[in-house]
Amino acid sequence: MRLSEKELISLIRRKLEANVTSAKVIVGPGDDAAVIAQSADKALVISTDALVEGVHFSLDWATAFLLGQKSLLSSISDIFAMGARPQACLVSLGLPAGIEPPFIEDLFDGMIRQANRFGACIVGGNISRSERLFVDMTVTGIVHPGAVITRAGAKVGDSIFVTGDLGGAALAVKCLLERRINGQTVARVESILRGDSEAPPTCSGDAGLVELLARFFVPRIRADESQLLAEARICTSMIDLSDGIGSDLGHICQESGVGALVEIESVPLFDMVPVAAMTDESDLTELAICGGEDYELLFTVDPGDEARLQELLGVGLRCPISKIGRIISKSEGLIYLSKNGECLDRFAGFDHFARRAEGREQ
Amino acid sequence: MRLSEKELISLIRRKLEANVTSAKVIVGPGDDAAVIAQSADKALVISTDALVEGVHFSLDWATAFLLGQKSLLSSISDIFAMGARPQACLVSLGLPAGIEPPFIEDLFDGMIRQANRFGACIVGGNISRSERLFVDMTVTGIVHPGAVITRAGAKVGDSIFVTGDLGGAALAVKCLLERRINGQTVARVESILRGDSEAPPTCSGDAGLVELLARFFVPRIRADESQLLAEARICTSMIDLSDGIGSDLGHICQESGVGALVEIESVPLFDMVPVAAMTDESDLTELAICGGEDYELLFTVDPGDEARLQELLGVGLRCPISKIGRIISKSEGLIYLSKNGECLDRFAGFDHFARRAEGREQ
Repeated sequence: MRLSEKELISLIRRKLEANVTSAKVIVGPGDDAAVIAQSADKALVISTDALVEGVHFSLDWATAFLLGQKSLLSSISDIFAMGARPQACLVSLGLPAGIEPPFIEDLFDGMIRQANRFGACIVGGNISRSERLFVDMTVTGIVHPGAVITRAGAKVGDSIFVTGDLGGAALAVKCLLERRINGQTVARVESILRGDSEAPPTCSGDAGLVELLARFFVPRIRADESQLLAEARICTSMIDLSDGIGSDLGHICQESGVGALVEIESVPLFDMVPVAAMTDESDLTELAICGGEDYELLFTVDPGDEARLQELLGVGLRCPISKIGRIISKSEGLIYLSKNGECLDRFAGFDHFARRAEGREQ
Repeated sequence: MRLSEKELISLIRRKLEANVTSAKVIVGPGDDAAVIAQSADKALVISTDALVEGVHFSLDWATAFLLGQKSLLSSISDIFAMGARPQACLVSLGLPAGIEPPFIEDLFDGMIRQANRFGACIVGGNISRSERLFVDMTVTGIVHPGAVITRAGAKVGDSIFVTGDLGGAALAVKCLLERRINGQTVARVESILRGDSEAPPTCSGDAGLVELLARFFVPRIRADESQLLAEARICTSMIDLSDGIGSDLGHICQESGVGALVEIESVPLFDMVPVAAMTDESDLTELAICGGEDYELLFTVDPGDEARLQELLGVGLRCPISKIGRIISKSEGLIYLSKNGECLDRFAGFDHFARRAEGREQ
C-alpha cells in the first residue's frame, strides 16, 4: 500500500498527538515549528527540515555553497513563520564517500553566512556516512508565548495575504530538471551571488537568471516582516510557503477548521522570467499553487485589522503584500476562482510528497 | 582526497568555531550536545543523531519498532551525558517509497515508548522521500548552567570510570553483519522485548540473545545515574560511549588537553554472550574499545572525590561502575596497558567513520 502525503501525515499526527501530554508544549505536531514554554515570558521554538539528494536537488546542478544557504534558509523560515526570533542551529549531515573537503567547506560557508545574517549560529550537529547526501537542519528560536502565530487561528471572513511573489523557486527547479538551466549556469550565478563576479546589468538576460535561481537557492526570508506582524498581533494565522499555496493554505484550513477561497488573478507571480525559463502565465500560476519553496509568508487578518496592516506597510513592512482571497466555511473547502469567477478544479487533491519523490528523482 | 573522521571533524570544527560569537552559547560544537543560556538558572541543551540505512542498520535484519527505540535512545543519551534532563524531541525521516504504514506505526511506537519513559515527548519533525531510510532525531533538554558536565574538564591524575559493561552492542552488530543472527531472530527477540512473547528463562541460550540484541537496539541509558552525578558535581568530564572507548576517551583527551591510560583488564565486558555470538575475550575487548554504541557513561573524577562516588553507589547510583584507568599528561597520549603492563598499540589511530561506511554497507 502506497501512502499519500495526507495519509502519511495524518497517521503520524495521530501517533504523535497521543504522546504529547506535557502542559509545557504550547504548539505540538502539525505547525511550522513546535513551541515549548520555558518561563512566563519565553518559549522555545524548534523546527527541522531536510534536503535530500535525488529528491530536493541533484549534485549535477546544485553547488555546495548554495545548498548550504538553502538548507539554513528553509529551516529558519519556519521559526519566523511562528513570529519567533532564531537562536541556534544544528546540522545533521549524511555524507557520501566521494564528497571532497572543498565541498564541505562551501556547504558550511553557505549555512554560516545565512545563520549569522539572522543573528543565529550553528552550535553543533552530527555526521554520518550515507549513500546519498542529505542535510538535515534544525533551528531553535525564542518567542514570547503571547506572540506565537500558529496555523490554527484563521476565522471565516478573514482576508488572506501573501508577501512577495510566487512561483519563481518552482520554475527554477523545473528548468533545472528539464536541463534548460545546467550546472555551469548555476555555478556562474553562484559566483555572482557570492560577489566574486560582477553582477549582470539588470537589463541583461542574466539578471533574470540570477533572480530565478536565487528564488530557489537563497529564498527571501521575511524576517523583519514576520516579527513586525507578530508584534502587531494582527495575524490570526501564518505559515511559510514551503509547499505552495495549495498545500500550505490547506494546512491552515485544516488546523483552523475553515475553508478558503483564492482569487487566482490576485496571486502575485514571479515576473523576472529569463529567456531560458520562458513559460506562460498559467504555468507560473500552477507553480505558485502546487510548486512551493518560495518561503514567502501566507497569513490571515481580520478585515477590521486591515487598515493597521496597511499602516505597517509604510513603516517596517518593506516587502510587497497581496490580498489573494478570504477564509470561508469548512464545508465549502478550498476553492480557486478564475478571473471570470469560474471555479478551477485542477489544483485539487495535489500530492506534494508523491511529486517530490517521482518528479525530482534523477 | 578521502577525509578521515578526524580530518573531517576538525575541518567542520574550524568552520563552526568562528561562527559562534554569541555569549549565550555556553557549550558550542565539539561536545555531546550544545548548551545555550536561557536565563540565570536554565540552559537549553540540544543534540542530534542520525541512523542511516546501509550504514547503521540494514532492513534485512532491523525491525521498525527496535529502530524507533534506538533512534530515540542514541540521541537522548547525549542529553543525559551533559548532566541535563530531556524535554522535547523532533524527528526528521527520510522514507523510501516502499515503506508501509505498519512500519511507520511501529517506528513511532518505538520512539514514543522511549521518549515517554524519560519524561520527554516528540513535538514534531519532518518527512522527506529518500532512496534509503534515515531517522534523524534531535532532542532538547534543560540543565542548570552550573551543573553542565562537558568533555573539557578532565585533569591529570583524575580517575576514569565507566558504567555497566561494554562490547555487547558492537558484538550484536558483528553477528548481524556476519549473518550469525538473522532478521527472524531479531523479530523473535523484538516480540519478547515488547512483552508479546514470554521472556526466555535466564538459563536458556535465548536469554543471552535477548540481552545481546537489546544492548544494540535498546541500549541502557544511564538517566538517573547521570543526574545524580551532575547534582553531586564530582565529575570533571563526561561522555556517552557512542563510538567506543578509543574514540570517546580520545574526545575527552582532546577537549581537556590531556592524555589517558586505560588498563585493559579493568574494562568491564558484556558477559552474557549467547552461543550464536561466541567469541573470545580479546575480540570482546576490541569491540568495547573500537566498537561503540553501548551508550554507557565514561566520566572522570578527582581522586579526592572517589570516596563520595563510592557513597553514591549505595543511594541512587544503581548500576555497576568500573575504574578503568587514569588521566595522564597530553604528551603521553592515549595508552592501553595489558594485564602484564605491556603497551598495546593495536587500538591506535582507529577511524570509526571509515569503518562505519565500509564495514556496514550491505
